[in-house]
Order: sequence, then structure tokens, then C-alpha cells
Amino acid sequence: MMSKSIRVYSPATVSNVTCGFDVLGFAIEKPGDTILAEQSARPGVRIKEIVGSDSIPLNPLENVASVAAQALVNHVDSKIGIDLTIYKNIKAGSGIGSSASSAVAATFATNQLLGAPIKNTFDLIPFAMQGEQIASGAFHADNVAPALLGGFIIVRSNDPLDVVQLGAPPELYTVVIHPDVQIKTSESRKLLPAQVPLKSLVTQTGNLAGLVAGLLQHDYDLIGRSMIDIIVEPARAATIPGFKELKQTALDAGALGAGISGSGPSVFALCKGEASAQKVLEEMKRSYQNFNIPFDTYISPINKKGTIEIID
Amino acid sequence: MMSKSIRVYSPATVSNVTCGFDVLGFAIEKPGDTILAEQSARPGVRIKEIVGSDSIPLNPLENVASVAAQALVNHVDSKIGIDLTIYKNIKAGSGIGSSASSAVAATFATNQLLGAPIKNTFDLIPFAMQGEQIASGAFHADNVAPALLGGFIIVRSNDPLDVVQLGAPPELYTVVIHPDVQIKTSESRKLLPAQVPLKSLVTQTGNLAGLVAGLLQHDYDLIGRSMIDIIVEPARAATIPGFKELKQTALDAGALGAGISGSGPSVFALCKGEASAQKVLEEMKRSYQNFNIPFDTYISPINKKGTIEIID
Repeated sequence: MMSKSIRVYSPATVSNVTCGFDVLGFAIEKPGDTILAEQSARPGVRIKEIVGSDSIPLNPLENVASVAAQALVNHVDSKIGIDLTIYKNIKAGSGIGSSASSAVAATFATNQLLGAPIKNTFDLIPFAMQGEQIASGAFHADNVAPALLGGFIIVRSNDPLDVVQLGAPPELYTVVIHPDVQIKTSESRKLLPAQVPLKSLVTQTGNLAGLVAGLLQHDYDLIGRSMIDIIVEPARAATIPGFKELKQTALDAGALGAGISGSGPSVFALCKGEASAQKVLEEMKRSYQNFNIPFDTYISPINKKGTIEIID
Repeated sequence: MMSKSIRVYSPATVSNVTCGFDVLGFAIEKPGDTILAEQSARPGVRIKEIVGSDSIPLNPLENVASVAAQALVNHVDSKIGIDLTIYKNIKAGSGIGSSASSAVAATFATNQLLGAPIKNTFDLIPFAMQGEQIASGAFHADNVAPALLGGFIIVRSNDPLDVVQLGAPPELYTVVIHPDVQIKTSESRKLLPAQVPLKSLVTQTGNLAGLVAGLLQHDYDLIGRSMIDIIVEPARAATIPGFKELKQTALDAGALGAGISGSGPSVFALCKGEASAQKVLEEMKRSYQNFNIPFDTYISPINKKGTIEIID
């Protein structure tokens, strides 16, 4: 048998998206992880190499990519052997779906090597979720689903899984700034209030309803007016050095809205049009240079394709 | 000057809509209130007659229609005189926007008699809200806005007012059953929890995001899956005799979903297609006959026009 291989790209993602805590996410065009999956005569999924990171485990039981791939292999009861090479472009712990990207890429690649036993890409989500769970400790689709499918995604329910694709307004761009500080998702969760006043729920639901409508109606002003989070952002803002300044800088520079990506430390802004995004990026960079913290920045349209095979 | 008059119809509305507490509402085609507004030489707004109800105040300072009309007259600083005749087809206290319908009809009619100083119908909402506030005690647009504009409406914010029109999926019908029992909105508000667990907020926001997406994407199954209210409905269900049975009957008969209209006592169901709605109506009627409580029923497509002038 001729050995087969496939190369797959899966994008970074922004989850939570202000008022959409645990419910809304979207994919960006770059950065993203690439995985080369090579069929091997030796059954089981292994990590051959991780390029671009030396902190991610090679042990296949501890790596999100191999765990996700193995979950799919087990599901179809295959004896296939797969060696994964991970080209890690999304920094672990950056808050833009690093583990989801690797888990999704591995799941997608494995399905192809298996001859596509899962016909509908949508149905790959639960396998990737099993991988991502290793890293995040939670069984959440809000990064995995947009990484796989592209665009904005509503996770109506994680169990049973119910994911809704919203696509994306054509002129929507995002700017992401990743301050090089450590935030543990589990610690960040502890900052959240256990209870929320009913009045705050009404405010939050009004904004989320407006945001979903704005995304589907391509109403950029409505998107901006709705990007308000009165519950999670106030609890977490202090964990990110300079968050308030970054957000205000983005809004002053013309961003539609801005907030914490995932549980941070990355901060994202949504903008109408590339020129606006460029301006917001420059101002956020300039503002953050005052904080003496190394940082990376990304600027990207909303990714509408999700995970794709890379044809050499 | 020739005396002028105008006749206006404003529909009943369903607010809250399961997971959309204080945020979502829609208009139904019937019933609705009709108001005849006649210009008079005597300045000020008066109630000439109320046809169909003897419990609604004739005192113009206490009647939602005249208060709304007068608010608009004051806004444009006019000395116009207006006599209102209210044809009351929506029962007061039924939970389907009775006061909003009268307030909106009066506001719309008054604007016409004044020569349309408010150019955009949308901008009539705050005046109608001032009228409805007399009856409900709250400054809420969730009945007023759909009564005026038709279709589904998101109230993103009441202050500052931000209302989003969603239109309606073409095959969507509603069935309403109004048990003849008294529920005071103020009492019903007291039953609500002051605080909500964060986990419940995530569930509720996931459902509301799904419901808004389903309405805009015309995805009837998604609408049905999303019509779940884990916060307000459980707190209020016991105030409506037979609510659980009515809801279960509607779902068993094929309704997409069902819930409390406003703060009750009316119960509504959404259905795909008229035939389904007819079946749901029949089963709800049959079920409710066991409760020995008089009731009215309504079946209607979603109203897409809102408030209209009636040309004789």
C-alpha cells in the first residue's frame, strides 16, 4: 500500500466575543496551526514532531492533536497508524484558540486519511472537542466549531451539541494583540461571579441578541453598539495589564468594539474595513509600548472557510 | 378648517418569547385595537368613548392612549384638539400587549392628524412608551415596538432606546390561549429571582442567540430547539392554571415551542404553517376544557405590517 499523507491548516479563533460568553466565537484568517498527518504501518496516533514550540507535550495521551485524532480513530474502530507533525504558529495560552486549532486540524486530517468516514465536516466537532478538553479542562465548542467551520458560530448547547453557523459580514476585520503574560483559564474562571443580577441578565441578553442580529444583517453599527459585556469583562479586565487602555485606544481609533479574546490575555477589536483595522492596529501598538510587556499583533479578515487541506 | 379624522389599527403582541425576557417581542395579526382620532376645536386630547370595555379609564390623564397622544402633542408644542374613540378588542390584562396596542394606535393617529411631524415611524416609539408606562409601570418597548413596526423585535436597550427589526419567517404562525384569570404584572415581577447562576445565564444566552439566528435564517427547527426559558418561566409557571399541561399539549401537537406571553396569563405557541397551528389550537382548546376556566383563543400569522391606517 502506498503511504498517504495530508497537510491541513486550521485557524485561530476568538471566543466569548464580549457579551457572548461561552456562546459565541469566530475564526480569523491568520495565524493558524498546520498539521502534516502521515499514514504509518504502526497502529495508533503519534506525535512525530512539534515545530515552533518546545512546551507542548509529545506524549500522544497528553497532546490535544493526537487525543482528538485517536478519538476519531477509535470511533470508527480502525487500526490505522498516523504520525502527526505539528507546525505550531499559535502560541499556547494566548487566548486565541491555540489548542482548538491543533485539535481540529488533527481531526480533519485523520478523517481524510481514514477515507472520510465522517461525511459531514460538522460532525467532526465532538472529536476535536475531546482533544481540546485535555488542554482546557472543559468540553466546549466555542473555539473548536469556528476553527473547523469558519465565520461566526453560536454554541446553543454543548451537550447535546447544537452549533449554529452565522457566516460573517464581508467588511468585518479583526485586530488581535497578544501581551506576553500568563493567564490560566482555570484561574480566570475563578474570578467570575457565581450569581448575576436578573437586571444584568436582561442587559447582557439584549446586547447578545443585538450582536447576533447585527452579524446576520451585516449591520456594522449595531454590531458595535452591542459589543458590551457587563458581566465577564469587568471580572477579568484586571488580569490583563493595560486592558482598559487597549480597549479605549481601539474604540477611539474607530473600532466597532473590543474585548477579551477567550479568557485572555489576548485582546481583540472588530473593525469595519481593512483601513480602519490598520489604524486601530497602529494605535493599539503605540498604546501598548508604554507597558514594557512584549506583545504580538495580528490583523485579519474574518475567516470564512475554517479548516482546509493545503495542496502543495 | 375642515375637521379631520383618522382610523388606525394596532395589533396585539407577545413579549418575552421564552428565553427573550424583556428583550424580544412580536406582533400578531389579530386581535388588535382600533382607534378613531377626530380633530376638535378644543385643545388637548380627550377620550370620547371606549367601545368594548367598561374597565378602562376615560380620564385622559389615566388612559394610555390619551397619555401617549398628549406626549406627542406636547413634544411638537401643538394646540391641536383630539377626541379619541377606542374600539377595544384586546382584553386588558390578557398579557398580549393590550395597553401597548392602544398607546401605539393613538400615537400613530395623532402624528397623522398633526401632519406627520415625526417622519420616521420608528421615532414614535418613545411617545407610545410614555402611554404604556401608565398601565405597566415600566418604561419598556417590548410590546410597543412590535405593535408599531410588526414582525419580531429586539429591544437591545430601553434607555437609550435601541430597537432592532427582525421581520418574521414566512411560515410562522402563533396560537394564543387566554385563560380568564387575573395576573398582576407587578405581582408576577415579584416572583422573579433577584440573582441568576452564571451557568444559567450561559444556557439562556445560548438559547436566545439560537432563537434570533433561527428567526433571521428562517430555520424553524432551530427556533423550536431554542425556545427554552430556564429562568423566568419556571418562576411564573404556577401563576397560570394549567400552564404545564397547555405547553406540553402544544409541543405534543407539533408546535415548535410554547411559553408565557408577557407575564401571562396568556400562553402562546409558535408553529410552522397554518395547518400545524390549527392542530395545536384544537389540542390546546381540548386540553384546557378540563380546567373549568373560561378562555379565549387566537390563531394568526406573525403580523409583518405593524400599525396601519384603516381606509374606509
